[in-house]
Amino acid sequence: MIAQDAFPVDPWQVRETRLDLDLLGSAESVFALSNGHIGFRGNLDEGEPHGLPGTYLNSFYEERPLPYAEAGYGYPEVGQTVVNVTDGKIVRLFVDDEPFDVRYGTLLAHERVLDLRAGTLTRTAEWVSPAGKRIRVRSTRLVSFVQRAVAAVEYVVEAVDAGVRLTLQSELVANQAMPRTADDPRVAAVLESPLVCVEHDTTRLEGSSGATLVHRTRVSGLQMAAGMENHVHAPGRVDVETQDAEDWARTTVVCALEAGQELRLTKYLAYGWSALRSRPALRDQVAGALAGARFTGFEGLLREQREYLAEFWDAADVHVEGDAEVQQAVRFALFHVLQAGARAEQRGIPAKGLTGPGYDGHIFWDTEAYVLPVLTYTAPRAAADALRWRARTVDDARQRARELGLSGAAFPWRTIRGQESSGYWPAGTAAFHVNADIAAAVERYRVATGSLELETDGGLVVLVETARLWMSLGHHDAQGRWHVAGVTGPDEYTAVVVDNVFTNLGAAQNLLAAARACVRQPDLARSLGVTLEEQATWRDAGGAVAVPYDEDLRVHQQCEGFTRRPEWDFAANPHYPLLLHSPYFDLYRKQVVKQADLQMALFWFPDAFSAQDKARVVDYYEPRTVRDSSLSAAVQAITAAEVGHLELAHDYLYEAATVDLRDLHHNTGDGLHMASLAGTWLALVHGLGGMRDNGGTLRFDPHLPEGLTRLRFTIRWHEVKLSVDITPEEVTYAARDHGSSLTLLHAGQEVTVRSGEPVTLPVAPVHPLLPRPAQPPGRAPVHRDH
Amino acid sequence: MIAQDAFPVDPWQVRETRLDLDLLGSAESVFALSNGHIGFRGNLDEGEPHGLPGTYLNSFYEERPLPYAEAGYGYPEVGQTVVNVTDGKIVRLFVDDEPFDVRYGTLLAHERVLDLRAGTLTRTAEWVSPAGKRIRVRSTRLVSFVQRAVAAVEYVVEAVDAGVRLTLQSELVANQAMPRTADDPRVAAVLESPLVCVEHDTTRLEGSSGATLVHRTRVSGLQMAAGMENHVHAPGRVDVETQDAEDWARTTVVCALEAGQELRLTKYLAYGWSALRSRPALRDQVAGALAGARFTGFEGLLREQREYLAEFWDAADVHVEGDAEVQQAVRFALFHVLQAGARAEQRGIPAKGLTGPGYDGHIFWDTEAYVLPVLTYTAPRAAADALRWRARTVDDARQRARELGLSGAAFPWRTIRGQESSGYWPAGTAAFHVNADIAAAVERYRVATGSLELETDGGLVVLVETARLWMSLGHHDAQGRWHVAGVTGPDEYTAVVVDNVFTNLGAAQNLLAAARACVRQPDLARSLGVTLEEQATWRDAGGAVAVPYDEDLRVHQQCEGFTRRPEWDFAANPHYPLLLHSPYFDLYRKQVVKQADLQMALFWFPDAFSAQDKARVVDYYEPRTVRDSSLSAAVQAITAAEVGHLELAHDYLYEAATVDLRDLHHNTGDGLHMASLAGTWLALVHGLGGMRDNGGTLRFDPHLPEGLTRLRFTIRWHEVKLSVDITPEEVTYAARDHGSSLTLLHAGQEVTVRSGEPVTLPVAPVHPLLPRPAQPPGRAPVHRDH
Repeated sequence: MIAQDAFPVDPWQVRETRLDLDLLGSAESVFALSNGHIGFRGNLDEGEPHGLPGTYLNSFYEERPLPYAEAGYGYPEVGQTVVNVTDGKIVRLFVDDEPFDVRYGTLLAHERVLDLRAGTLTRTAEWVSPAGKRIRVRSTRLVSFVQRAVAAVEYVVEAVDAGVRLTLQSELVANQAMPRTADDPRVAAVLESPLVCVEHDTTRLEGSSGATLVHRTRVSGLQMAAGMENHVHAPGRVDVETQDAEDWARTTVVCALEAGQELRLTKYLAYGWSALRSRPALRDQVAGALAGARFTGFEGLLREQREYLAEFWDAADVHVEGDAEVQQAVRFALFHVLQAGARAEQRGIPAKGLTGPGYDGHIFWDTEAYVLPVLTYTAPRAAADALRWRARTVDDARQRARELGLSGAAFPWRTIRGQESSGYWPAGTAAFHVNADIAAAVERYRVATGSLELETDGGLVVLVETARLWMSLGHHDAQGRWHVAGVTGPDEYTAVVVDNVFTNLGAAQNLLAAARACVRQPDLARSLGVTLEEQATWRDAGGAVAVPYDEDLRVHQQCEGFTRRPEWDFAANPHYPLLLHSPYFDLYRKQVVKQADLQMALFWFPDAFSAQDKARVVDYYEPRTVRDSSLSAAVQAITAAEVGHLELAHDYLYEAATVDLRDLHHNTGDGLHMASLAGTWLALVHGLGGMRDNGGTLRFDPHLPEGLTRLRFTIRWHEVKLSVDITPEEVTYAARDHGSSLTLLHAGQEVTVRSGEPVTLPVAPVHPLLPRPAQPPGRAPVHRDH
Repeated sequence: MIAQDAFPVDPWQVRETRLDLDLLGSAESVFALSNGHIGFRGNLDEGEPHGLPGTYLNSFYEERPLPYAEAGYGYPEVGQTVVNVTDGKIVRLFVDDEPFDVRYGTLLAHERVLDLRAGTLTRTAEWVSPAGKRIRVRSTRLVSFVQRAVAAVEYVVEAVDAGVRLTLQSELVANQAMPRTADDPRVAAVLESPLVCVEHDTTRLEGSSGATLVHRTRVSGLQMAAGMENHVHAPGRVDVETQDAEDWARTTVVCALEAGQELRLTKYLAYGWSALRSRPALRDQVAGALAGARFTGFEGLLREQREYLAEFWDAADVHVEGDAEVQQAVRFALFHVLQAGARAEQRGIPAKGLTGPGYDGHIFWDTEAYVLPVLTYTAPRAAADALRWRARTVDDARQRARELGLSGAAFPWRTIRGQESSGYWPAGTAAFHVNADIAAAVERYRVATGSLELETDGGLVVLVETARLWMSLGHHDAQGRWHVAGVTGPDEYTAVVVDNVFTNLGAAQNLLAAARACVRQPDLARSLGVTLEEQATWRDAGGAVAVPYDEDLRVHQQCEGFTRRPEWDFAANPHYPLLLHSPYFDLYRKQVVKQADLQMALFWFPDAFSAQDKARVVDYYEPRTVRDSSLSAAVQAITAAEVGHLELAHDYLYEAATVDLRDLHHNTGDGLHMASLAGTWLALVHGLGGMRDNGGTLRFDPHLPEGLTRLRFTIRWHEVKLSVDITPEEVTYAARDHGSSLTLLHAGQEVTVRSGEPVTLPVAPVHPLLPRPAQPPGRAPVHRDH
């Protein structure tokens, strides 16, 4: 857990006031900078010490063998793993003849600040070398939102109280030695030195010195280029020299400073990669990006960055009063969600964004089910781009469906490039709900933006091919009910089941949405071979979907038979996460839930359940849900709020919000949990704000828990920026764009909001139908006291 | 498929009349010799060409890593693989200066005969060397049933029509180069050269020359010794010389023969291995065994072998009239089943015996469910020994149960030494029925032999610890029915289910048998901590076991919900075995059955089903059972016979009988299918003979299909040899031991049979309740026309 005293709560910053070497890894993730194309972990400028060095390019991966003790038909043989690419962040410093290394000498002060409005990571350090020379270092790092291929570092050293000779080494380093992460020696071998040098060059322009390194991956054959350009300002004589080699390039700066004088290095970085383009094209792309950065200048890059973010925050900010930690956390979350998706531009958004190598850098359903719902209402273009990426991979998904004996397209459970990379099918291939989640994201985009642009550009093919998949996965029984057998829902402690409710309702929605979309897009539908008869089968199946219910217990079953399974013995299994201490066979057969599953269905398909149903589901499943997944708390916050347990919703919200800031899962060092970060927003907006838009009608039913005095957020809805300002007693809806208006339901009551005419209404009373539920022993969320 | 014309049908032999190099591998398995301790594949004397060289010692294995693309708790990390040990079979021959190699020169004649009464593999070859020299070779090979550590080869070369110089090389060869079988380079590396030399010595005794090689495995650290002693007889001058090195020893014999003269080599071989004993002890053990062999002489070994087999056949032979292939096959089967178990002596009996490296040389439930039922009634001491091996591994099984969060003992799905080595848990760990199968074998031994010897020596601990396992696996529902959730039955196309009928009835029988055994053995039970209360819980659960039944379709469900699953599309999936063409996810969720499962329950638990139930089960499941496992046909023969489909029973019997002789599964080259071989006997005795002894009463209800004119078999029952002689019209029961008598049921009627007073009774009429069922398209067994 990240010590709170080193990270004081601040509404627009994440500030680290001292350096704790044990927390380096998680701080590197928290302080990661990215624009969705380039990702820099928050490594120290000098490279060491580190938790894990990390520089990533979206979708730049290496292949590795997937081994099986007993292989089976359809098991993917090739995995994909994100590559730590050429590191351009590094600026090493020597004070006289001693390296600046925080582990030696005396670190008088060290502070790092991630500024959520500036989009920069700044660092200040005051250090006395072992020989007694005192210096101050200030660095500012950014990965540009505006210039997609560009990052930059400004590094300033001041001689504090005596003259020193300073040597700076500004570097590009490829094939950094990595801490070993895989047990399998073959895998480790592949990833140990994944980059093969293609070209290395020194460049020298008037007033700057730099280099370019071009590499390709050994197996996947992708090519990348990294370039740097160094500008140096210092009083007196300065020697600047650049050398390059296969796996490194180094600009060395030497100067002598008097006390009070400064050496300033401005380092522009540019990255490019391609599976198709030639070496010269990549090299030139990097040179061009560097030229653009130089033209803009460091101050210009800072200004652009701030302007980009100001526009984002204007339409996306969430203001919270009464819980300062949640206030900070939701902005931190929105910032990182934006970083993950902003400039991905038809590449996927991985579960860790570009903040770390966790989950091999793979994209999961997290993107469509957690991240895109946030981006759809705050940065819709990024959401559409991520979905266009899915549409671009439809041929891989079609091929996978064929391999599995299915129709349509089966999108991968986990992937970088588009091919299934899951090595354990019961929790991979069988989790077909990912297809419904993708389809739902396509449909959500249309509903929220009112735009058909995505539907005609990739969206329809996704809807149609996933509908076809469902038709081949499902079957009708003798009574005409439509079932889906042999699949795994969100709860990874219950696998390969019949009629998982979340999956079934998702499939039905997918089928019905596809049918409606084909009516809207008859020509496009025809070009995909969709007949009217096929659409009719979709409507038939979608309208007849089975939703298992236990008549004796009067509660829905997460899947057929779930409530008849043996109960989990919580007392005998006190160690979490359970999957590290119990075999799947035992988890699968018992009533123990890893993460919100039926509760996810309550949230996604609110109209499929009565208020009584929802209360019963929360009551039954809460004591059986262990939250061993970071995806769970946000959804539990939403359903707790929906059934009137507002304090519990607040507790879950807090948990979702602090998964990374407090390192609750002890793996923030591998990268941030994008879904949980996004979940913070979902918990606030859908949970406390009670927002739903199923069926195309925007609905709110906000309630604040004890202690929260205000929640204000803005969403984009059909080109309108709607702000919702909630206090314990009333809520004000305002359409912020001139001349705009929209109609919504407030607590079931229709309201039209026109720009310049905010509408204030009283919050509806809360009447929970059942008492606050218990959680499994030791798994209640931390209670937010006031 | 093995060409029938090269293998003419013979009641007491398997004879190969010409050498087909494409069939070498399967012939090596068919012609394998073993005594259950040493196994020799039927490799040619000169070692090459070969399908797969193979020399095995029961339970001598190497460890290898089990890799996982995504590992999970409780997955075994270490696998066990049978090792091809030092090969002592090799006798190379040079004719003048040319090696005798059947691929060169002209092979005028080549015949091999496996003699089922002699227990030998003999070979005769007539060959003209590329230089035109004609020789005859006769070799006779045996692995002694009587002298457990001993094998021997007699090798005779005759110069046919001209003088030749002959050079013989009689060898021991360790670490033979093997065809690569594993894709995983790490695994291949481990198994490429598994033996490390510990000692190599030449021995020279009066009149003989030989050598000993001692090796140990690299990882598992087992030690083995192989010794040879060569005796040479030839006219005129003979030079004999022995050399030894780390991985080989060679006795070279050189002589010159005139036309018509013979060179005769007698080679005694001895093997020993141990995990505990010292190098000198092993070396001496081998020397001692060689001394015993020399003392007995080759003729003596042949005589002993014949006597041993005569005694076996006297009590075990099955005589079939009307189907010569089945006649041959059942004797072939009994011979190999005997070879697999005869002298295993508290080691396991692998699924392939010691005939090949298939399934890594692992032991599965095949042993207890197929092989031991045959041995129990024909060679009961071997059955008891195999079960004592299980009892000896109970501590490993207890530890595995702890690992899985269970009580009692969880015996491994696959293993050599006793530890679970399964790398795919849904078809490994989850197949808990193996525990009920082992318990059933213990109980069967007591019922059939009337002896409590095994029960007090390991049997009770097996019954008690498996009963405890079931109590921790099962649970009661609100109505008091006892269920078992999350397990896999015999059908590997349906996994991780609730209430698999075979498993449930097996568990119930296990619980009840354990409770009764504890009443018989109160002191022993107390020493295992069994209380009267614990026994009561066993009886309660065992008496309340759930057996799912579909009221609408009026048929039992193989497991809960089975008959409600989607149907398999046989037309769309014409390629078998299905598991090579379809993913588990699709197989698991549909009504497609790999192998007899519910039909196995009909056979094992005949009293749990009415005649109507049985007819319905066969009718419903036959069209859904694809027989992708060699374990299936025998059981389907038995149930077909039971419900009156005698021709179908005959067809299935024929399939079970010829799985290896006709290489029906295209993998006989990896080793023989012991379970299917044993199944031939089961199909004849339990199927056509209608034998059951559930509840301790021996019952018969024999019927012969059209075409079979006689079936006569002998079983041992309570120390009595009972022969049953069946014709289409009547059956004669005879107690063959002087002064003995026993009571049995014939077609439900009680009969007492006294020695010297055979009882002849009419066969009961057959009335099938339903028509002959169909099988999946293309999967009907070959019909036995008459």
